Amino acid sequence: MSKTPVILNLGHEDLAKKLTQKLYGESGNLVHKTFPDGETYIRVNSNVRGREVIIVADLSHPNEKIVPLLLTALNCANMSARRIGLVAPYLPYMRQDQVFNPGEALSSRIFARLLNPAFDWLITVDPHLHRIKNLNEIFLLNPEVVRSAPKIAEWINQNIENPMIVGPDQETDRWVRRVAELCNAPFLFLQKHLQNDDMTKLSVPKNTSFKDHNIVIVHDIASTGETIKQSADAVAKYGGTVAKTICIHALFENRNKDHNDQADIDLISTNTIPHASNVIDVHELIVEAALEFYLRKTIPAIHRLV
Amino acid sequence: MSKTPVILNLGHEDLAKKLTQKLYGESGNLVHKTFPDGETYIRVNSNVRGREVIIVADLSHPNEKIVPLLLTALNCANMSARRIGLVAPYLPYMRQDQVFNPGEALSSRIFARLLNPAFDWLITVDPHLHRIKNLNEIFLLNPEVVRSAPKIAEWINQNIENPMIVGPDQETDRWVRRVAELCNAPFLFLQKHLQNDDMTKLSVPKNTSFKDHNIVIVHDIASTGETIKQSADAVAKYGGTVAKTICIHALFENRNKDHNDQADIDLISTNTIPHASNVIDVHELIVEAALEFYLRKTIPAIHRLV
Repeated sequence: MSKTPVILNLGHEDLAKKLTQKLYGESGNLVHKTFPDGETYIRVNSNVRGREVIIVADLSHPNEKIVPLLLTALNCANMSARRIGLVAPYLPYMRQDQVFNPGEALSSRIFARLLNPAFDWLITVDPHLHRIKNLNEIFLLNPEVVRSAPKIAEWINQNIENPMIVGPDQETDRWVRRVAELCNAPFLFLQKHLQNDDMTKLSVPKNTSFKDHNIVIVHDIASTGETIKQSADAVAKYGGTVAKTICIHALFENRNKDHNDQADIDLISTNTIPHASNVIDVHELIVEAALEFYLRKTIPAIHRLV
Repeated sequence: MSKTPVILNLGHEDLAKKLTQKLYGESGNLVHKTFPDGETYIRVNSNVRGREVIIVADLSHPNEKIVPLLLTALNCANMSARRIGLVAPYLPYMRQDQVFNPGEALSSRIFARLLNPAFDWLITVDPHLHRIKNLNEIFLLNPEVVRSAPKIAEWINQNIENPMIVGPDQETDRWVRRVAELCNAPFLFLQKHLQNDDMTKLSVPKNTSFKDHNIVIVHDIASTGETIKQSADAVAKYGGTVAKTICIHALFENRNKDHNDQADIDLISTNTIPHASNVIDVHELIVEAALEFYLRKTIPAIHRLV
C-alpha cells in the first residue's frame, strides 16, 4: 500500500500542486460536479485507503463551499483514509467570536463544530483571532496557525525604504507588531471613533510624528477595502506619505476584477485567497507547516462515525 | 415561561405563517443577513429558552442554505431551546443513495449526518427514497414523512375525468400507485431504455391500452423538466391524450420564471418548493404532522454539545 499522501484540490490549484511536489504526494483525482438541482456530486477517484489525505480548500465566501468540502472529507473517511487534513489558508467565520446582542449566533464556534468531525488537523494562515486567543479553544481537531508576517516583512524590506507600519486599529496588533519587528521599523495604530449608524471613522493619534517615514498600512482582511481606504485617507490628511497598503486575506467578491476598481486603493495581498492583488507568496510557509503535520505521525486519527 | 412554540422562517413564509396560526405559536423574529465577505449573520430575536422551536426551511438548491440553517438551529440549542424541529418540505440529497462507482460520495447519508446533531425531529414531504426504504436508516433524529398523494388525488378527482396515472419509471411506484388508488384509476409505468451517453429514452409498454382515459403523468421531482417532457412525448406518440403533468417538488432553478418557459411543458406542482407552477396545496398535511410532533411530548431532546 502506498504511503504517499493524496492531495485533493478544492479551489487552490497552485497551492495543491506545490504541496503535492514538496510532500512527494499523489495529486488526487477529485470529480466535483453540480447537478441541475444544485446538489453536489463528489467522487474521489484515487485510492485513499490507509493513506494520508490533505484537502486544500479556498473557503472565502464560504457558505456554498462547505457542503462540497464536508462531502469530500467524510467520503474519504468512508473510504478508510488514515488521516484527513484540511489546508484552508483563509479560515472564515472567525470574526463572529462574541455575542454582542442577545440571540446572536456565536458563528465562529458553530462553524468550528461543523469542521471538527470531518478532519484530523487543520492549517490556516493568520485567522482573525481577537476574543478567542487560540484556535484550540474552538477546534477539537489539531489546528496550526501559519504567520504571514515574515513574508510581508520581507516584501517591505525589499521594496520600501524607511518604513513605518500602520494598523487600522488595535485589533491588528498581532500582525502589525510582528511585521514592524521584522522590518526593524516603528509602528502605530489608528484610533477608531464610533459614529452614528455603526460607521467608524479612523484618525491618526495626536502628537504622532511621521518624520520621513514611508507609511505601510497592514490589515488582515479586506472585503470592501473601506477600512484600508479610510486608513490611507487618515494618514494622508495628517501629512503622511502612504507608500503601500497590504492585506493578508483579499476577500473581495470578484477575484478577477482589479482591486483598484473595487476599492479605489493601491493594495497588495498575500496569496491566501486567489485574487488579482496577490503579490506576497506565503505558500512556502504553508507547505512547511503541512510537512510538519505529515511527519508528526503521532496525531491520532479522530474516530469518525459516518 | 411561555409554552407556545416559536416558529422561525427560512424561505417558506406562507407555510411558517400557517404553522404559527394552527399551533397557536409565536412568529419568531429571525434576523438573517449576509456580510460583504459572504458570511451569514444570524440573530434569533425571540426568547426560545425552554421552548419548542420549529424551523421551516426551503432546502431546494441546498448548498448555500445549509450553513445558515445550521447556524440558526445550533444557536437555538445554545439558547437552551427545549426541542428543535425542522420542517423541510423538500429534503435534498436523497437521490444520491448508492455508490454506483468506487469513490463516489454516499451523499444522502453524509447530508443526514450534517443535520442529525442540530435537530430533534424532521418533517418532510415525499422524500426520494429508493434504495433507502425509510429515513430512519440514515437519520438519527425522528423523521416523519408526509405523503402528498391525497392532495394530488383530490386535485385529479376534481379536474380530470376518467384519469389514468402514468409514472415515468418504476422508481415512481410509491407515488403513482397511491394516487391511482385514491382516484380509483388504472396506472402504468413507462419503460426506460438506456442509450449512449447516460441518456435514457422512455416508451409506453407494448400492448398498453389507453382506451378513453385522460393521461395524468405524476413524477416526484422536476429539475429540468426533461423526464416529464419525455414521458408526455412517449404517451402522445403512442396515441394517448396527456391531460396534465404533475410533479411533487418543482426544483426549477428560477422559481419566478414560468415553468412553461423552462421546460416547454404544461406542469403543475405541489407547494413543497415555492414556484410559479404551485397549484396543489399540501401545507395543511404538513401542519397536521407538525401538530402531531408538537403534541407528542415524549420525543427526547437529543443532547447537543455546541
